[in-house]
Amino acid sequence: MNIDKIQIAALAGGVGGARMLDGFAALGMGDRLTAIVNTADDFSLWGLPISPDIDTVMYTLAGLANVHQGWGIAGDTRVTLDAIARYGEDPWFLLGDQDFATHILRGHRLAQGLSLSEVTAQLVISLGVQTRILPMTNDLVHTHIRTEDGWMDFQSYFVGRRHADHALEVRFDGIEDAESAPGVSEALIGADLILFCPSNPIVSVDPILSVAGVRKTISASTARKVCVSPIIGGQAVKGPAADMLHQAGYEVSALGVARWYGELVDVMVIDEKDAALADDIRALGHEVIVLQTLMGDRDDRARLATEILAAL
Amino acid sequence: MNIDKIQIAALAGGVGGARMLDGFAALGMGDRLTAIVNTADDFSLWGLPISPDIDTVMYTLAGLANVHQGWGIAGDTRVTLDAIARYGEDPWFLLGDQDFATHILRGHRLAQGLSLSEVTAQLVISLGVQTRILPMTNDLVHTHIRTEDGWMDFQSYFVGRRHADHALEVRFDGIEDAESAPGVSEALIGADLILFCPSNPIVSVDPILSVAGVRKTISASTARKVCVSPIIGGQAVKGPAADMLHQAGYEVSALGVARWYGELVDVMVIDEKDAALADDIRALGHEVIVLQTLMGDRDDRARLATEILAAL
Repeated sequence: MNIDKIQIAALAGGVGGARMLDGFAALGMGDRLTAIVNTADDFSLWGLPISPDIDTVMYTLAGLANVHQGWGIAGDTRVTLDAIARYGEDPWFLLGDQDFATHILRGHRLAQGLSLSEVTAQLVISLGVQTRILPMTNDLVHTHIRTEDGWMDFQSYFVGRRHADHALEVRFDGIEDAESAPGVSEALIGADLILFCPSNPIVSVDPILSVAGVRKTISASTARKVCVSPIIGGQAVKGPAADMLHQAGYEVSALGVARWYGELVDVMVIDEKDAALADDIRALGHEVIVLQTLMGDRDDRARLATEILAAL
Repeated sequence: MNIDKIQIAALAGGVGGARMLDGFAALGMGDRLTAIVNTADDFSLWGLPISPDIDTVMYTLAGLANVHQGWGIAGDTRVTLDAIARYGEDPWFLLGDQDFATHILRGHRLAQGLSLSEVTAQLVISLGVQTRILPMTNDLVHTHIRTEDGWMDFQSYFVGRRHADHALEVRFDGIEDAESAPGVSEALIGADLILFCPSNPIVSVDPILSVAGVRKTISASTARKVCVSPIIGGQAVKGPAADMLHQAGYEVSALGVARWYGELVDVMVIDEKDAALADDIRALGHEVIVLQTLMGDRDDRARLATEILAAL
């Protein structure tokens, strides 16, 4: 694989995906990197369209992300939200003042007739990000989660109830009619490396794979298909992936992740903590790369990206 | 006039109107005071509906107004606007972060099908304001100004070009089809005192008077109709009223204001500086009350309100 010319298409959710992308972008590969980002968590708040995963990826690649909380912009203030609460609204979803700017402009430009792809490209360019960030689709898809209290939309489950409920079932409303956004197919077809970022396989990556044509295009691709396990030492680095895998009947481990993706993935990148699982994963037919996969700052993300490329 | 039971309907624009209303509200008359506020300056910015005069009145009566700049909220920050500018937008209209909350919620609730009256009432109640604040209409009216560079919308003239152009002509687009908002007629009919606030006669009060039925209802009313002159010592306290009166062919003085309103007004409240004009104004058929009309803080506003009521 010629590292200097490699084209990467990456399937990404929020924080984990954003950090992995940031690692490759930090190597100066931004212009050969296309992020295909989950939009099934998107929702509307006070009329403003919010795309949490796109924003996390965009802010992270722009060097703006709040590393500690995993979403939003570092150092952002919360004046607008407090004022909204003064008007009697429940500030259940924490939005910073700079964040509001993103959602206001996204809403405005969508209302003017631009697509989410077009708006995203504009915002990304304004922030000086070189990586192409594509929503998986410009159509509306909404993840719903069935808990013991019944079905609820994703953000109510994830933020409103802090994903404390068991996710008994997951569905992506609108997915049957969702077409992939412009550039998604081309990026997958042109890729030498298709990266399954360390994002939640069930609610971050699966929506992307479920968009018409995406799974088939990946299956048919001759690119290396590499998954960085989001499960380390039997735990999700962040979020409800562990519970979701368990509820779906998979081991909460890199092995479970490998089984979940099955033949769609060629190479599993697993953490050193999980080295003991390597043989079982190989037995499934995957190549295995064992690395220190937990990512810290940008240098550490670049270190992991370098090691993945070297191992391939 | 029984001061303890007096019902006041006030026609108001932005700062001058807001301060006058605040004076009466400070006397504990808030629940007998209805502000009928100009909405012809309303416009949309990044998809958010902005009602500058309603907001100035609302913020002032809530004790939140930024007294120094005359609009916006005291101590407000500008993080959202800076972030909007980072996305390449021109931040020509200065909105604070708390201000954004107002416009976001107004936009959201209007989009949900509430009227501007209903949304305004909700916001006003949330801020603990007792005075009823009514938009003059729930229909869209847009002031346009003809300058030597041609017609432009009001905010381009007023904010964008800092009202440096001569206002050669004024028109209120949509005014022919504008119905008065619910409560406006009732407030005027039930009023013992109809107050023409010290607001711009031409672009703040005239739009209100031009809404269907308003001028006629005031003409037919037996209430005392009292105008507090916005012109003191030949100058507008704030804004382009002086130039506008001049361009319209009126003296830039309390006398010119009296002529402008003509028989619609019974009583002119003029400043001590303009005492020499009293006889000329009386000659037009008006009663004249001479007071110190320039308003400072809330105590000073209440002082003027008290003196006006005493003089009546």
